Amino acid sequence: MNNKVYFTPGPSELYPTVPQHMQAAMANKIGSISHRSQQFKDIYAHAEKGLRELLQLPQNWEILFLASANEIWERAIQNCVEKESFHLVNGSFSKRFFQISEELGRKATKHEVPFGEGFQADNINIPALAELIALVQNETSSGASLPVAEINKFRAKAGADALIFVDAVSSMPHPAFDYNLVDSIYFSVQKCFGLPAGLGVWLVNERCIAKAEALQAKGFSIGSYHSIPSLLSKAKTFQNPETPNVLNIYLLGHVAEEMNKKGIQTIREETETKAQLIYDYLAASQNFDIAMQEPGHRSVTTIIANTKIPASEVIKKLTPFDMVIGSGYGNYKETQIRIANFPTHSVSQVQALVYKLKELIG
Amino acid sequence: MNNKVYFTPGPSELYPTVPQHMQAAMANKIGSISHRSQQFKDIYAHAEKGLRELLQLPQNWEILFLASANEIWERAIQNCVEKESFHLVNGSFSKRFFQISEELGRKATKHEVPFGEGFQADNINIPALAELIALVQNETSSGASLPVAEINKFRAKAGADALIFVDAVSSMPHPAFDYNLVDSIYFSVQKCFGLPAGLGVWLVNERCIAKAEALQAKGFSIGSYHSIPSLLSKAKTFQNPETPNVLNIYLLGHVAEEMNKKGIQTIREETETKAQLIYDYLAASQNFDIAMQEPGHRSVTTIIANTKIPASEVIKKLTPFDMVIGSGYGNYKETQIRIANFPTHSVSQVQALVYKLKELIG
Repeated sequence: MNNKVYFTPGPSELYPTVPQHMQAAMANKIGSISHRSQQFKDIYAHAEKGLRELLQLPQNWEILFLASANEIWERAIQNCVEKESFHLVNGSFSKRFFQISEELGRKATKHEVPFGEGFQADNINIPALAELIALVQNETSSGASLPVAEINKFRAKAGADALIFVDAVSSMPHPAFDYNLVDSIYFSVQKCFGLPAGLGVWLVNERCIAKAEALQAKGFSIGSYHSIPSLLSKAKTFQNPETPNVLNIYLLGHVAEEMNKKGIQTIREETETKAQLIYDYLAASQNFDIAMQEPGHRSVTTIIANTKIPASEVIKKLTPFDMVIGSGYGNYKETQIRIANFPTHSVSQVQALVYKLKELIG
Repeated sequence: MNNKVYFTPGPSELYPTVPQHMQAAMANKIGSISHRSQQFKDIYAHAEKGLRELLQLPQNWEILFLASANEIWERAIQNCVEKESFHLVNGSFSKRFFQISEELGRKATKHEVPFGEGFQADNINIPALAELIALVQNETSSGASLPVAEINKFRAKAGADALIFVDAVSSMPHPAFDYNLVDSIYFSVQKCFGLPAGLGVWLVNERCIAKAEALQAKGFSIGSYHSIPSLLSKAKTFQNPETPNVLNIYLLGHVAEEMNKKGIQTIREETETKAQLIYDYLAASQNFDIAMQEPGHRSVTTIIANTKIPASEVIKKLTPFDMVIGSGYGNYKETQIRIANFPTHSVSQVQALVYKLKELIG
């Protein structure tokens, strides 16, 4: 029996009800049912409906299930970029999306700032021919967050046909996006949804769909089983082209339902309250400094601090108390810590973590 | 509580120990651990080692974890075909691989025979420029099986640089392949391994790796995070480029270990014994006919019969007895039935199914 509480930035602590839903899935043999059966379609529809309600998603947006956010990066480029994409880069994941565009043979351009710095929309020049503009609402590697108010400025700055993509891998459902001002948002279920890894959720509006269809009509290859048209043709009847991760779609439906019972507003407020507890502690600590200087650009879900004590030592000190936090990402492995503040983490768990860090680290 | 036994061709009955392994995974919080941690690397290594032993895989072959067999089709074309692939087509899945090559902009050629018919290597002309030769050892849609002895004839017929790919999605680990005479084999875990869906396993030899590297060196796009070189660079240290389906890799390790305890020879013999029970019944039935005429080309793992009684009625008659078989695939939905005979299905379960079908259908 593992009694640890995982404050790692994903995979992270599972949503509290996941083990019981998994047990029910085993008892009801959800892992054995056909992915073309009515029983599966009902499971898919339940997840789709729950997510749509939770995210307050308009009818002109579609929900697609893929295997990971990495896959969504690749499908985004394949389906929505014929020649050129433009990327805001301020950490390892935004950089990876940029690289994937290059690896797929596109011209990828970027506006790059040092790791962990934020962006001001006003300072950014968008290339006229960029077909896809990659924004990162929450950089999981660095904890830099692009406020929704800044995201909303990009539509006016972008070309009329450009599609605005938003990485909310480790923040959704917290940000209250204006769905009229962006075209696609994507996230992974092993972050804020508290599920096992193995499912990426891709939200697209009718402009993304039209772009993929137009490229396909021109004879341009947009991929195969996971092109937007292929995914959509099955999604319309609550299925995937391939046999998907059925158990995760089942679990997602149940967690979304429970999040809806709690209410998105409550989840958002609790997230902010817990983030404040952590940031207040970090600001007062002698051994930690909040990594992001600008308060408005601090992530509320993946909280990063510079640490004077090597991250591995901080992590080790917490071990006897069954608390797990993340080390820094990549080159920052020992010089930063990362604390996930997801809906699964209760106020009292966060209070206990802050209390223990204060006692152990100061 | 669902007490059905699923003889469906995948997803199918889970391996008997899967529910207890899943419970242990939940108790030990396997869904929360980092996919870069030593704990995860050990889980990955355990699955890799167990599979390598079970499949008797030589050291010049690598094991890669992807999301589905659909994905493997796409990655195979991206990584191993610059211009032209050649496909044996005798059912819906072999046809889909052919189409995916076309959708990815390659010249795909095929040797097609009617749905459910077998192939004789001697009758097949392989185009001289085919870089990948797609064989289907077990057509899940039609139950046609290509004997390993026939598969082994293709190396001599193919160009020196051609790569021989084998679809064993719903038969592995039953076929005893000669790894010197083929270059890649792939399968899905929701078939013979009795796991929940959401993981495809891709076996490649050094020739596939060299081909992908050569294409990449030429500046040809071979994909991004799931190119062979990207997958391999992480597989060397027991990781995936993306956060993978951690729970399924964990379960696969445990099921492979148990299969190894039973022994591959025993599993193969049991599979053949059970297949014989089913085929003997079908041959004697007044209402079923074995779909595949040629005995040597009958699948031992996905057994298909033509049915005089609509498949939906047969399935309905079995329902009160908690037995589930599959309908026919696609156009054959009502005119054929499909019975999975996987390692999870015990001799006594198969005997009970045959007994009940005899009683209900004759």
